[in-house]
Amino acid sequence: MLLKRARKALIMPESWNIKILEPKLQRPVPSDIQISRSQKPKRIQELAKEIGIHEEELELYGQKKAKITLDVLKRLQGQKDGKYIVVTAITPTPLGEGKSTTTMGLAQALCGHLGKNTFACVRQPSQGPIFGIKGGAAGGGYAQVIPMEEFNLHLTGDIHAITAANNLLAAAIDARMFHEGTQADDALFNRLVPKDKSGKRRLSAIQQRRLGRLGIKVPEDANDLSPEDRARFARLDIDPETIVWNRVIDTNDRFLRKITIGQAATEKGHVRDTQFVISVGSELMAILGLCMNLKDMHDRIGKIVIANDKKGNPVTADDVGVTGALTVLMKDTVRPNLMQTLEGTPVFVHAGPFANIATGASSIIADKIALKLVGEHGYVVTEAGFGADIGMEKFFNIKCRYSGLKPSAVVLVATIRALKMHGGGPNVSPGAPLAHEYLNENVGLVTKGCETNMKKQIENATKFGVPVVVCVNRFSSDTDAEIEVVKAKAKEYGAVGVMSDHWASGGKGAMDLAKAVIETCEKPANFKFLYSESDDLVTKMEKICKEIYGGDGIELSDMAKKKIEIYTKQGFGHLPICMAKTQYSLSHDAKLKGAPTGFKLPIRDVWASVGAGFIYPLAGDIMTMPGLGTRPCYFDMDIDPETEIIDGLF
Amino acid sequence: MLLKRARKALIMPESWNIKILEPKLQRPVPSDIQISRSQKPKRIQELAKEIGIHEEELELYGQKKAKITLDVLKRLQGQKDGKYIVVTAITPTPLGEGKSTTTMGLAQALCGHLGKNTFACVRQPSQGPIFGIKGGAAGGGYAQVIPMEEFNLHLTGDIHAITAANNLLAAAIDARMFHEGTQADDALFNRLVPKDKSGKRRLSAIQQRRLGRLGIKVPEDANDLSPEDRARFARLDIDPETIVWNRVIDTNDRFLRKITIGQAATEKGHVRDTQFVISVGSELMAILGLCMNLKDMHDRIGKIVIANDKKGNPVTADDVGVTGALTVLMKDTVRPNLMQTLEGTPVFVHAGPFANIATGASSIIADKIALKLVGEHGYVVTEAGFGADIGMEKFFNIKCRYSGLKPSAVVLVATIRALKMHGGGPNVSPGAPLAHEYLNENVGLVTKGCETNMKKQIENATKFGVPVVVCVNRFSSDTDAEIEVVKAKAKEYGAVGVMSDHWASGGKGAMDLAKAVIETCEKPANFKFLYSESDDLVTKMEKICKEIYGGDGIELSDMAKKKIEIYTKQGFGHLPICMAKTQYSLSHDAKLKGAPTGFKLPIRDVWASVGAGFIYPLAGDIMTMPGLGTRPCYFDMDIDPETEIIDGLF
Repeated sequence: MLLKRARKALIMPESWNIKILEPKLQRPVPSDIQISRSQKPKRIQELAKEIGIHEEELELYGQKKAKITLDVLKRLQGQKDGKYIVVTAITPTPLGEGKSTTTMGLAQALCGHLGKNTFACVRQPSQGPIFGIKGGAAGGGYAQVIPMEEFNLHLTGDIHAITAANNLLAAAIDARMFHEGTQADDALFNRLVPKDKSGKRRLSAIQQRRLGRLGIKVPEDANDLSPEDRARFARLDIDPETIVWNRVIDTNDRFLRKITIGQAATEKGHVRDTQFVISVGSELMAILGLCMNLKDMHDRIGKIVIANDKKGNPVTADDVGVTGALTVLMKDTVRPNLMQTLEGTPVFVHAGPFANIATGASSIIADKIALKLVGEHGYVVTEAGFGADIGMEKFFNIKCRYSGLKPSAVVLVATIRALKMHGGGPNVSPGAPLAHEYLNENVGLVTKGCETNMKKQIENATKFGVPVVVCVNRFSSDTDAEIEVVKAKAKEYGAVGVMSDHWASGGKGAMDLAKAVIETCEKPANFKFLYSESDDLVTKMEKICKEIYGGDGIELSDMAKKKIEIYTKQGFGHLPICMAKTQYSLSHDAKLKGAPTGFKLPIRDVWASVGAGFIYPLAGDIMTMPGLGTRPCYFDMDIDPETEIIDGLF
Repeated sequence: MLLKRARKALIMPESWNIKILEPKLQRPVPSDIQISRSQKPKRIQELAKEIGIHEEELELYGQKKAKITLDVLKRLQGQKDGKYIVVTAITPTPLGEGKSTTTMGLAQALCGHLGKNTFACVRQPSQGPIFGIKGGAAGGGYAQVIPMEEFNLHLTGDIHAITAANNLLAAAIDARMFHEGTQADDALFNRLVPKDKSGKRRLSAIQQRRLGRLGIKVPEDANDLSPEDRARFARLDIDPETIVWNRVIDTNDRFLRKITIGQAATEKGHVRDTQFVISVGSELMAILGLCMNLKDMHDRIGKIVIANDKKGNPVTADDVGVTGALTVLMKDTVRPNLMQTLEGTPVFVHAGPFANIATGASSIIADKIALKLVGEHGYVVTEAGFGADIGMEKFFNIKCRYSGLKPSAVVLVATIRALKMHGGGPNVSPGAPLAHEYLNENVGLVTKGCETNMKKQIENATKFGVPVVVCVNRFSSDTDAEIEVVKAKAKEYGAVGVMSDHWASGGKGAMDLAKAVIETCEKPANFKFLYSESDDLVTKMEKICKEIYGGDGIELSDMAKKKIEIYTKQGFGHLPICMAKTQYSLSHDAKLKGAPTGFKLPIRDVWASVGAGFIYPLAGDIMTMPGLGTRPCYFDMDIDPETEIIDGLF
């Protein structure tokens, strides 16, 4: 009996007994916030129970969101994983292709309408842009995460914890340089390693690790160190020109893009130019996305390189002494956040790293837990940021490399609008009215778009050995003829093409997509990486440029060459590449649509996130701090103090 | 039957059926974190149920903390309040008197040992100092809030929400000045009030309010406004020299004490000097402490004065357009956080404003809910920051003025150490060894301390018409003779004197204190304010200086005179005074111990928190951003990735 109960808990049932919420479809489709508000979510503990999460693995944050402890992974280690589906897109227009919407729609269809255990995994959005231009929400229409306010504001505080941890390290760096700059070797050492009651100077664990890295034997009493060793230990000797660790804030604050700090009299003239970036740009967010558990997070934090010393050696967060403190601040972030779709199916919202200077994908931990919870016959639908040339490439080459997970299918989202643009249609820009071509049938432009960008992006997925479903994310202006072309072309290029109407009809509208995904997951997949760890950094960049972008190769600036040399010498040449490039073209030039060729990819600089575990070359200017326009959407925002209903969020 | 059930829910039982946790007292007393960790807290939903909170009024944040909705107040509006006790102290040494410890010990004794319904209400600590010098924790020894890690780190995210809201307003101010500085009137107006689909320019609600304040009638179509009115509406015309709204961060980051912002090319030379202060110094934190509910919070946020315009008129957060957005960000902060003492009795942790530039007291909302939950025969023990001359004075004159609550008793905490210092003992400073006088009996110094500082602080409480219990917070080096002197002197000055040993023995050690408090609460209290709203600002300051500090009056700098004139002209002369003064002396000079007389209080500047609702004169330099020393305590901090046990937090 005991054995039977234990077995029951350790293996997931083939099919969840889950209550599906039916959306009340209205025409015309109301605003996202209206739809979100019109659906009463299940209590999150109810959903957790339905999908086999035990009560002691659940940490409630109010009634509508919860954190899940990693004990689930231990409990279900004998459970086989479900199918792993990544949602990506063709090269998008600035209005977006609807990847999140499709992720939700597909999960709603698979789980709510076809009875398959299904999890959707998405990123937590940055709070900053919510108050700038209208933005936020995972999905939209009848395919979204609810409640939308909870999803967009604070969630369970993960980004706030990252902000706090990031800024503690930043404060520690400047304070350390200040104290090194104002104290002689002996005074500095004696303060860093104060005498205990017995008169001995004992090194803390993190100080012992630094001594170890310096190749100095750890003495019982640090008084016994030679004056030279004391100085080597006590002086990080950071070269201020090489500091790469910035402060972060989860607010669109353009005036913090470049600042001078340390100008109070108390800092005695130790001024320095630096910047704030938006919190989701922190390397700590990238670490949260790629780590396997709390221990791995701890180890990766310790390895963060914050600068070089004046001799050119890397200085790490562990050298600064904050590895433990940062992990303490981030300890709860490691647990994925459970929410639900509009139809009451489960969603993990976890981590939200930038898609240019980082991977742009939600966390490995959430995907792993979800794959166990859905069980062998279930599905996990996870989203990769930007177009397939960036988000999917990084998903495969970085995220899957670290996780060891093998994807079963790619969903390539396309809008007729984007296909027309790639086919030669006029410019599409936010705020401006759409040109005639986009509002009326134009099979020619669609065909041309399929033959260029879509074809190339299907090829890109195929290079990794993963089968592709092309999903036309339906707009009301799309015509049957236009959609048929996409389906036919998708087939011609070895993929399956379907139309999906989840935005207007929820899971019911995504039935064809869901069926196509189920069939495609049965096809043989032969997942492989594009490059090997042992390829040198230049080779990796060349492969990405030639194989994925369709370019003729890379062009390194002198700075980029120098940085590659330094990183290689420092032992970071084995790391995968995380290209920071525009999402609006397969090339580095946002204006080049379709499938451009004959270009060289200019790499103007190369940076490293050693803790997260990748090198990121900059192919163009990357904006890491958004701003506020003349009339940000906060002018429309308010809350009813009685009902607490929020207006103007969308 | 229905009526009976309803009655049951609307009136609290005379005595809670509450499970008390017994601490396992050890000798010598272990570290705070060891004690905290050795006690398994009740599940917070269990505690909530025991004290009559309904399930739908509870929002869990994990198993050990929860937010309580303000529905409780509505449900229990017919319930009579319990007794209201404020814990304050004589003028402290830099090592502190143990107010929080006494608050917890008293609550543990009243609730756990005398069977009285009792709530403790304390502030949420800033996270910054936790990682600097050892600090944090509400209480210590066997009188504290548990679990300590949860209390000190993030809690339920209230400070993070305040940080986000504060910085959105800061970003909005600089962005607005930038856009006003780079656009002509028409372009600016047209962007602020864009055309809708019908071609009309419609003002949002917050824009209509601004128009109203300018005395301009709100038109249906803003196109109809005259060019002059458009310009007046669109240009806040902020005088950058008068901006008082700073950015905040919950990290000890000394390099942000003075910074230059706006130096990126995108800001086109609109540079400005400003500063970051620690998050708990935000006016939004002061608002959280003083507001009555979400509507009141909304209204107070709208009234925040962020600067003057170039004509000298106040510019408010409502003018900037962010009232609703800031309230949306802070909506959950309004709900107090429920935790428990080491003995399982209830604690509200809510709001944590600075005690110098703000009130230094926990929230009115928490006190009000607690007073209803304990019921007519119960007790609420709430703490006021700093010594009685500051914390208690502000508690009475500001917090009680806004709340309308009438305190029943003052607990004045004193250590033998502090009394000796006031009696003429040598300097006490953190880190330095204590002088001989403090480690051995010295009845003479204790007597002198009682006759000066303690006497004056008892008088101060008495001026407000509230009876006083003097509590000697017991240290192992205290002798019976020393303690007897304090008791006798307290009696002589009209108070009751008791010794309390809660640090070493928990609630059991605070039984005498608890009994004295119960008796004192039965005495007639005749609570009155020190000054009237209608007194002018200078009169209020004079009264505080002469009556409470024992000085000869105030000495205003030219700047202070000018600011008083401006604030009075702007209509803020009715606001109460929140003096920013050192806590280490009754005077402005930290070196003057005992009960100094014959001094003039120099006011170097005067500031206003109009949203929170007070004017704060600066009697000395106030540090609003702590720093990190050479060896901050993060060097000792770590977390076991398996057990998640945190080391080095204390």
